[in-house]
Amino acid sequence: MVIVLKEIRVGLVGYKFMGKAHSLGYRNVPFFFPDRARPVLKAIAGRNEEGVRKAAKELGFESYETDWRELIKRDDIDLIDIVTPNHSHAEIAIAAAEAGKHVICEKPLALNAEEAERMLAAAEKNGVVHMISHNYRFAPAVQYAKKLIEEGRLGKIYHVRATYLQDWLMDPDFPIAWRLKKEITGSGALGDIGAHIIDLTRFLVGEMTEVVGAMETFIKERPIENEPGKTGVVDVDDAASFIARFENGAMGVFEATRFAAGSRNRNCFEINGEYGSIKWDLENMNNLHVYLSEDDEGLQGFRVINCTEEVHPFADAYWPAGHIIGYEHTFVNLISELMEAISKKKSQKPDFFDGLQNQLILDAIEQSAIDKKWVSIPQRANHIRV
Amino acid sequence: MVIVLKEIRVGLVGYKFMGKAHSLGYRNVPFFFPDRARPVLKAIAGRNEEGVRKAAKELGFESYETDWRELIKRDDIDLIDIVTPNHSHAEIAIAAAEAGKHVICEKPLALNAEEAERMLAAAEKNGVVHMISHNYRFAPAVQYAKKLIEEGRLGKIYHVRATYLQDWLMDPDFPIAWRLKKEITGSGALGDIGAHIIDLTRFLVGEMTEVVGAMETFIKERPIENEPGKTGVVDVDDAASFIARFENGAMGVFEATRFAAGSRNRNCFEINGEYGSIKWDLENMNNLHVYLSEDDEGLQGFRVINCTEEVHPFADAYWPAGHIIGYEHTFVNLISELMEAISKKKSQKPDFFDGLQNQLILDAIEQSAIDKKWVSIPQRANHIRV
Amino acid sequence: MVIVLKEIRVGLVGYKFMGKAHSLGYRNVPFFFPDRARPVLKAIAGRNEEGVRKAAKELGFESYETDWRELIKRDDIDLIDIVTPNHSHAEIAIAAAEAGKHVICEKPLALNAEEAERMLAAAEKNGVVHMISHNYRFAPAVQYAKKLIEEGRLGKIYHVRATYLQDWLMDPDFPIAWRLKKEITGSGALGDIGAHIIDLTRFLVGEMTEVVGAMETFIKERPIENEPGKTGVVDVDDAASFIARFENGAMGVFEATRFAAGSRNRNCFEINGEYGSIKWDLENMNNLHVYLSEDDEGLQGFRVINCTEEVHPFADAYWPAGHIIGYEHTFVNLISELMEAISKKKSQKPDFFDGLQNQLILDAIEQSAIDKKWVSIPQRANHIRV
Amino acid sequence: MVIVLKEIRVGLVGYKFMGKAHSLGYRNVPFFFPDRARPVLKAIAGRNEEGVRKAAKELGFESYETDWRELIKRDDIDLIDIVTPNHSHAEIAIAAAEAGKHVICEKPLALNAEEAERMLAAAEKNGVVHMISHNYRFAPAVQYAKKLIEEGRLGKIYHVRATYLQDWLMDPDFPIAWRLKKEITGSGALGDIGAHIIDLTRFLVGEMTEVVGAMETFIKERPIENEPGKTGVVDVDDAASFIARFENGAMGVFEATRFAAGSRNRNCFEINGEYGSIKWDLENMNNLHVYLSEDDEGLQGFRVINCTEEVHPFADAYWPAGHIIGYEHTFVNLISELMEAISKKKSQKPDFFDGLQNQLILDAIEQSAIDKKWVSIPQRANHIRV
Repeated sequence: MVIVLKEIRVGLVGYKFMGKAHSLGYRNVPFFFPDRARPVLKAIAGRNEEGVRKAAKELGFESYETDWRELIKRDDIDLIDIVTPNHSHAEIAIAAAEAGKHVICEKPLALNAEEAERMLAAAEKNGVVHMISHNYRFAPAVQYAKKLIEEGRLGKIYHVRATYLQDWLMDPDFPIAWRLKKEITGSGALGDIGAHIIDLTRFLVGEMTEVVGAMETFIKERPIENEPGKTGVVDVDDAASFIARFENGAMGVFEATRFAAGSRNRNCFEINGEYGSIKWDLENMNNLHVYLSEDDEGLQGFRVINCTEEVHPFADAYWPAGHIIGYEHTFVNLISELMEAISKKKSQKPDFFDGLQNQLILDAIEQSAIDKKWVSIPQRANHIRV
Repeated sequence: MVIVLKEIRVGLVGYKFMGKAHSLGYRNVPFFFPDRARPVLKAIAGRNEEGVRKAAKELGFESYETDWRELIKRDDIDLIDIVTPNHSHAEIAIAAAEAGKHVICEKPLALNAEEAERMLAAAEKNGVVHMISHNYRFAPAVQYAKKLIEEGRLGKIYHVRATYLQDWLMDPDFPIAWRLKKEITGSGALGDIGAHIIDLTRFLVGEMTEVVGAMETFIKERPIENEPGKTGVVDVDDAASFIARFENGAMGVFEATRFAAGSRNRNCFEINGEYGSIKWDLENMNNLHVYLSEDDEGLQGFRVINCTEEVHPFADAYWPAGHIIGYEHTFVNLISELMEAISKKKSQKPDFFDGLQNQLILDAIEQSAIDKKWVSIPQRANHIRV
Repeated sequence: MVIVLKEIRVGLVGYKFMGKAHSLGYRNVPFFFPDRARPVLKAIAGRNEEGVRKAAKELGFESYETDWRELIKRDDIDLIDIVTPNHSHAEIAIAAAEAGKHVICEKPLALNAEEAERMLAAAEKNGVVHMISHNYRFAPAVQYAKKLIEEGRLGKIYHVRATYLQDWLMDPDFPIAWRLKKEITGSGALGDIGAHIIDLTRFLVGEMTEVVGAMETFIKERPIENEPGKTGVVDVDDAASFIARFENGAMGVFEATRFAAGSRNRNCFEINGEYGSIKWDLENMNNLHVYLSEDDEGLQGFRVINCTEEVHPFADAYWPAGHIIGYEHTFVNLISELMEAISKKKSQKPDFFDGLQNQLILDAIEQSAIDKKWVSIPQRANHIRV
Repeated sequence: MVIVLKEIRVGLVGYKFMGKAHSLGYRNVPFFFPDRARPVLKAIAGRNEEGVRKAAKELGFESYETDWRELIKRDDIDLIDIVTPNHSHAEIAIAAAEAGKHVICEKPLALNAEEAERMLAAAEKNGVVHMISHNYRFAPAVQYAKKLIEEGRLGKIYHVRATYLQDWLMDPDFPIAWRLKKEITGSGALGDIGAHIIDLTRFLVGEMTEVVGAMETFIKERPIENEPGKTGVVDVDDAASFIARFENGAMGVFEATRFAAGSRNRNCFEINGEYGSIKWDLENMNNLHVYLSEDDEGLQGFRVINCTEEVHPFADAYWPAGHIIGYEHTFVNLISELMEAISKKKSQKPDFFDGLQNQLILDAIEQSAIDKKWVSIPQRANHIRV
């Protein structure tokens, strides 16, 4: 007999930007997906008591802890959600899994593949549901792109080009933050936003077999916050670019940077296949551009599709056609799938296998940038279910 | 001493598309605007008990009523929100105001100006806060457009062109729904979506003084739902277009239609002034296109601005720059303003003055379409506060 | 036996902007359309000898005249091309036709319908080929739009919205030019650019039966050129907008203005039909946006078609797909058709029937703006051949 | 005393697509640039007499030769223009230079850097003007981009990403043409279209110091034309992608492919600098997208600039603002500059130095694709004049 959970009690570790995004997701799943198991916002953990108390109130949690270890010990928590800086992911996730909690973790999964491997092992050994929060997979337009590719509408894939361009770091007076310290974050633009386009591309095109890349830190020294006159060395990349080859023969070109003036958050891809192409841009995330070479001569061109119709994935949960959704709904969709997975005790992609595989690619890119040559990528992800 | 309400107890009449949109708005105001008075979803009213019970659960209301009169009688309700078909707006709104409830009503305010006038009188007489739900005013890009105009960045306004194009009614087999019956809805495309572009334009450009228009019903007979073989006459417009002149000398060109193939929800405007122009399109609602003739020679062109930066109205309540919001957030913003207005007992635009003024314009367009000549518009809106 | 002319000897009256555009057209027809009769640039006429001599040299004419009457008298001229200000069109065109010359005339055909009627009568009586230079009909994307409509791909037409937006007149210090004097130009924005969208719409959608419009002069007084300190009254419109109804039941909304900041030359239309829609914009004139509701569910959206493929009208005369053409090629195409018509002594649309019909519409709009009511349009155009 | 030539007598070798494009350029320089030395189309050379005779007539040449050596011998030729397949460039160009003729050659300059080096040496030794036909440098929007960069409007350059995407080769039944044979063409997509984006990028951003790339032939065997049932091996690349580093610290990402479904001719670049960014796309080549971070907060966004205003490079030779030009005008502009250079005996970029430098980069990319590691690029281009 399968016990189907009706409510899933959530403990969140961390409460900054991602904490807000995840909390909104939990908040709205019952509204948009009333048939799914209902998340209950039990507790939030953070080291600063004042901060975490305020966060608990604003984000809608019933209680708080100042030590995540206490959160994990609690009996009234089913799921641990980790939105802390990268260097703490492994310890928390492993502890949570060992305590039998389901786990969702922000990306990148870890500081390196070795950590990721241990996280995966812990989750698998303890039979918990594990997921990595690559939310962009859950944009309706991206899901629809996946569907078109799986149906063979594009045929064999020849090319993918993906960029994640931001510009928030261009001011040389912007101080060193945790995202700029290697010991805390692992890498810079590469792990932060490059990880997203790696994951999206693997989701849509398949596994990469080898990569060659370059990394650069344009501003090598920055002021230290609250220490007037002092500067520190930036030891992570401002930008990373790489070329990849895929198992299925496709070629990929990638770029992640925080130095693309005018691009606040341009997570974009274009995929070219035998019978057509698709393009997507996060800043206008409801639209998918689709070209089909089967169209009549003269009538061939990229279609701009507003993926808000009933037929588009997740769209029927929202509003009538032409009434768009936004960034936060990628989390609502992701969490609705997570609720379903936990309630039915099944796996849900992207999981720690994906997190590990993404990490192996990140590591390979870093290695190739050091060695100045192509690097092969070990294959660890399974592909049982998307 | 001013008593500032901390919680505002909401009674919602109706629960279809707009019921869902308003409910989501109430749900998320505390999350995104934690400093505002908190809406409490007390009760929802609808005639069909099964339907309203289900709606109460899904939309998050504590209780339900099958007669809106009961809802209005309740002591534990501060605000009546009316999302029923148009022909019932006047009766409910007047009863609510008479009972001392604050009122927000979906657009168009009424079936005609006479009804709207009575609604306004009741609300004013009883000193309640009254608002009409023209949510598109509250898109950050629209608010920012307003700001630019008020700051004089466009100078004197010469032109406005606005369209609201939809295509959901083009199938001749689409049955007669309440939106296609004059006695229930007043008018067709004109009152349903034309009202939105009239309101947006008044908000941005100012008051219209005269109009001339045309209305058309392309499919004059349609099947009656659940009565196989029977058809009924469509007595409202499928499309309406009109030209207007404004108090400030601007010229306006408008079009509202449900027969624009490919336009699911294209609520668009362009405004041309002495020093610049702006353009907006609901389907990509985060973007505002701005042209400023003060730009250097050679560098003049429409800028595509993603209105998601801290400096853009309402944007700091949401996500970092480049992380877009969607349709529903226009309601979150609107309701956050309504909460503020009620808690401080102040008026908030658009109110019943606006609803009445919009209705006077709708009536004038209908009259001009009959008389085939220009019709003057009486002025009833006040402009105290936006 | 039909005599097919191999060369057509051209006499051009006028040599400003349109003189240059037409001359380039004649120059390049033999290059792009080698099978067509070859235009020979015999002579150019203008009142200022220095100016016309220089123009002859630069535009590639063999000789010049300082009186157009002399040009018409010459035996070595087959075709008179009129690119002078509007008030001289009728006299020149009638004289040319009386002299047995074929005639092409810039738009608008005349100052009013009465003049246009006499021009048409003269051309028809003398059996000469007559054409009006509405070059935008000859953009490949526009011709392709026409083809799609004629093939029924859009079905019954419901809507057309067309704008011709410019901004060159917004500076109040811009002096009074001939285009701003009623006696020379007839009307302002209406006849100059409104005529284009009227013609394009008639070409694509069919005949209009009635109109109602508004006209406005935003800057009513302007400096007189070379007379420092003096100003003159502008007696033509800066902007005109109007609504129309078509024979086939379609509704039209139109706007022509020289006061749309940021729009240098935005001649745009959108047409909505039963089965689809098309959009076009002169500033990106190679692209046609096409929506077809027959597309699979989920894959519906406007396609951006770069009309540079062999299958697109006129495109095979030019470059491989994706290599765009420009404004001047509308004239090359138009003149290649004119050469064909003259060499085979057949009529070619748009002709003086069209010029007259466009003029009847322009007159009706002016009348409606004065009377403030709808005005019916007499039907004079024939539709034998496009 | 400098003798300024008034006429420059042209001998063209080859007459296919590029022959037509160059001929149109020569044809229209006197029309659009009346002050420049006038090209006289003296003779055209090709091996097939019937073909070359027809070409002479259609393209407007006075005479023809069936052996390019005869053309070079002629006294009445000042300039040899080489538009033949790549493997013949070196021999013809060297012979022309040795004969004291000025030379312009299609891209890529040669089959490899060694050939290019010899071509450059011959041209320099004989003191002739030499140019390579990288026409895209001469699009007004590209020239304007160059101007903005030189003026420092973008500041230090951080990134360039450039693609040249086509799709004409995707049909596996498309036969082996000369562009698919290594002995004739040198490389495939890389040399044909990759060369363009290399040249454009060097023009705009500066010299590259090292590259790493990948090349791929997706369809490895194709039918042989006119030999039914027979297939041949494709020994050039269908696609090439590479990463580059620039002397000035910028990073570059590049892709050239003939397998991007839906992209007929998408030659695009985006450049990100310290103070702003620019974007360009050949299929809408009149537009330049410019972002300037100096814009007021809230008003920051990419501007879409239609580079047809007097202030834009070359634009005053053409039409009023908003009246676009097309692909062919890149050749008109290029040749007008060539005429100026020859008439004044001065050098004009891009010249054989550029052709050589581009070739060194092409060779390095090929080498890196074989060695699977980064390859350094020798520096041979001079930068005296753009």
